[in-house]
Amino acid sequence: MAELIGNLLVAQSGGPTSVINASIAGVITEAGHHECIEEIYGGLNGILGILNEDLIDINDELSKSIEGLKNTPAAALGTCRYKIDFKNKPEKAAQEMDRLFEVFAAHNIRFFFYAGGNDSQDTVHKIHLEAIKRGYEMSVMGVPKTIDNDLPATDHCPGYGSAIKYNAVTVAEIGLDVGSMATDDGSCCIIEVMGRAAGWIAAGTVLAKQGNPANAPHIILLPEIPLDEAAFLARVKATVAEHKYCIVVCGEGVKNQAGEEIGADKARLDAFGHAVLSGAAEALATLVQGKLNLKTRTVKLGYAQRAAAHYASQTDVDEAFACGLAAVRAAIGGKSGLMPKIVRLNSALYRWEIGLEPLENIANVEHFIPREWISEDGFLPNAAFIEYASPLIEGQVQIPHKNGLPQYTVLVKSPVEKKLAPRA
Amino acid sequence: MAELIGNLLVAQSGGPTSVINASIAGVITEAGHHECIEEIYGGLNGILGILNEDLIDINDELSKSIEGLKNTPAAALGTCRYKIDFKNKPEKAAQEMDRLFEVFAAHNIRFFFYAGGNDSQDTVHKIHLEAIKRGYEMSVMGVPKTIDNDLPATDHCPGYGSAIKYNAVTVAEIGLDVGSMATDDGSCCIIEVMGRAAGWIAAGTVLAKQGNPANAPHIILLPEIPLDEAAFLARVKATVAEHKYCIVVCGEGVKNQAGEEIGADKARLDAFGHAVLSGAAEALATLVQGKLNLKTRTVKLGYAQRAAAHYASQTDVDEAFACGLAAVRAAIGGKSGLMPKIVRLNSALYRWEIGLEPLENIANVEHFIPREWISEDGFLPNAAFIEYASPLIEGQVQIPHKNGLPQYTVLVKSPVEKKLAPRA
Repeated sequence: MAELIGNLLVAQSGGPTSVINASIAGVITEAGHHECIEEIYGGLNGILGILNEDLIDINDELSKSIEGLKNTPAAALGTCRYKIDFKNKPEKAAQEMDRLFEVFAAHNIRFFFYAGGNDSQDTVHKIHLEAIKRGYEMSVMGVPKTIDNDLPATDHCPGYGSAIKYNAVTVAEIGLDVGSMATDDGSCCIIEVMGRAAGWIAAGTVLAKQGNPANAPHIILLPEIPLDEAAFLARVKATVAEHKYCIVVCGEGVKNQAGEEIGADKARLDAFGHAVLSGAAEALATLVQGKLNLKTRTVKLGYAQRAAAHYASQTDVDEAFACGLAAVRAAIGGKSGLMPKIVRLNSALYRWEIGLEPLENIANVEHFIPREWISEDGFLPNAAFIEYASPLIEGQVQIPHKNGLPQYTVLVKSPVEKKLAPRA
Repeated sequence: MAELIGNLLVAQSGGPTSVINASIAGVITEAGHHECIEEIYGGLNGILGILNEDLIDINDELSKSIEGLKNTPAAALGTCRYKIDFKNKPEKAAQEMDRLFEVFAAHNIRFFFYAGGNDSQDTVHKIHLEAIKRGYEMSVMGVPKTIDNDLPATDHCPGYGSAIKYNAVTVAEIGLDVGSMATDDGSCCIIEVMGRAAGWIAAGTVLAKQGNPANAPHIILLPEIPLDEAAFLARVKATVAEHKYCIVVCGEGVKNQAGEEIGADKARLDAFGHAVLSGAAEALATLVQGKLNLKTRTVKLGYAQRAAAHYASQTDVDEAFACGLAAVRAAIGGKSGLMPKIVRLNSALYRWEIGLEPLENIANVEHFIPREWISEDGFLPNAAFIEYASPLIEGQVQIPHKNGLPQYTVLVKSPVEKKLAPRA
């Protein structure tokens, strides 16, 4: 590609994380240093907003707002779960691709950055290929994000460290609470965390043990390992016998031996005959309370765990920012169709750098926990996993507070004038 | 009472809070300054441990551990829900009271401090009256604690400010997350918090709005106000029409028009015909998703909200510590049968002091949110409540960290030699 001169468009996709805005801050900060980038635009609600030509002018934002994005949760530009569906709706997808390139051309977009997970990297890859096919000169870069930590090629994903830091402190605190209430009657608490296919998030809570086997969590149920009910109940019973209480963490996607998610157990019907979708923790609590006659309570962290910027990992914030920055540097250097990845240089004395990976190696590939990082009985990640995960939660963020609560950044979002007719 | 000389016993009761240990630190710190207090003992697991003569010697703890208690969640001495049941089991209760005074006498306990909520203050009151009846010279003091904020006489309860600070940041963060995902399809998130009878905890999340009516939470359902399903659904619908999303906070004890807890809805049966007790948020989600066909997700913070010392309110920590300290000063001054209370001197420029209240005015009285602090439609606390609650979440705690997680205090708990035969 000849040296590109033109405007930059950055957008966000998929479920937010505590640090997806830090990556956007990295893109914007670095973009400001290069004269070949003329205007910096944000796309609202990802692809969906770009299709509607809903762009905002980042130059109208205060510089302190861009700094503030480093510590602001959720997707400051808005996000979407919209997929250009070439597989099932090829005609509509082709129309949408046409429209995207109309928007790119109308606003002279020559640098396009899209932060997201597996599905989103597939979208970015398709746009990259399409730009080449159409002879439209544009650098197209993916920016990694997902608390699920299931992208391949990168050592880990921005967003993951903060999610497991928050979940680990929560499990540690609940462990102290339930432990201090424990009397001879015994008790159990089941904490449900995100992760439908991969168990990275659930596994990360093992850090709450802080090296002490007696500490919570005592059992971690991963979606990768089908639940053996009898072995699970025996383990709960043994833990209560030893400690008078038991803390269980489960990924939301834990499956039974038949491969069905236990949180959507079809045996549990509501008054209208619909399956009760109250989740894995509730299903496990029903099991434990029913079979062991043990007082059992549940916690479901839900969206809190991916939005808890008040307790994000500083390491994660730094890495997320660096990914955004590296994406711009690569684009300026004439590259396209890549995603920055985190390369671990040293684990014990944690050091990392940013590499680049072709999007074709990322799109639609899911990365699972290696079986050898999980104990033989499947109930806890082992030392190899702990060595991997420990550095990712290091460092406490400092967030400006007012009236006792964080002052998160809200963008002004001044709209860029539309140049096209509305989409049909 | 003549000036007392002897040993001190302190214990904890009921559900823990983020700051119940700060109160214990206040008791221990102040006790160390008075020569009339010879030994400082802790009772393990409240009354239950004292009945078993399970005492520990606080003098064997490091002074930095006592300092660390200020920021350590859960009950460091262990706690219990045990009640001396004079009403239903008078004979057993009388035996237990005899046993308690045997333990007090055997260890020359002349100062007894018990930190807890309504039930526990009733226990303390009974012990106080019993000491007088028996002519056993001992100062007996309650120390207030409960995240429920339902003790009378005190402006608010130690533990409450930290619970609503954590819940408010969580609701604010989830609000940003869900808001950033909101597209024309709309979505709803229902966050369940503690509070079975009183809605103080749910109400406190209104602070997440930070003065902006557009911010989450959009609806707060309090146990005090029976749920009007039609009005609730209409409000969710209107909120989604305006903002494309709606964040609802509900107290776990929200009731229907018949006065039944909706979280224990008998219409929802499991495969064995038992009522599904999955909670208020799940019941509301079934309602919203079913009636409005709106994507609805739930969050259940459970024990996390009373244990989240990593985001406690510094104001709450200071007040909890001051309550412990004031209890000792009053006891040294020859007083008994009292509980320290927080007296608000000024709201806008928040100032407070510690007063003392006779236990007979505290025991078994529940304090609810005044109706005039809630909007007419019942869906949000109003400005009067916000003025009341705002100062309670001020101040961020600084907690020592290691490997990315808080270093909470664990007591050594060296046992005091038993002097009595085991309990029959």
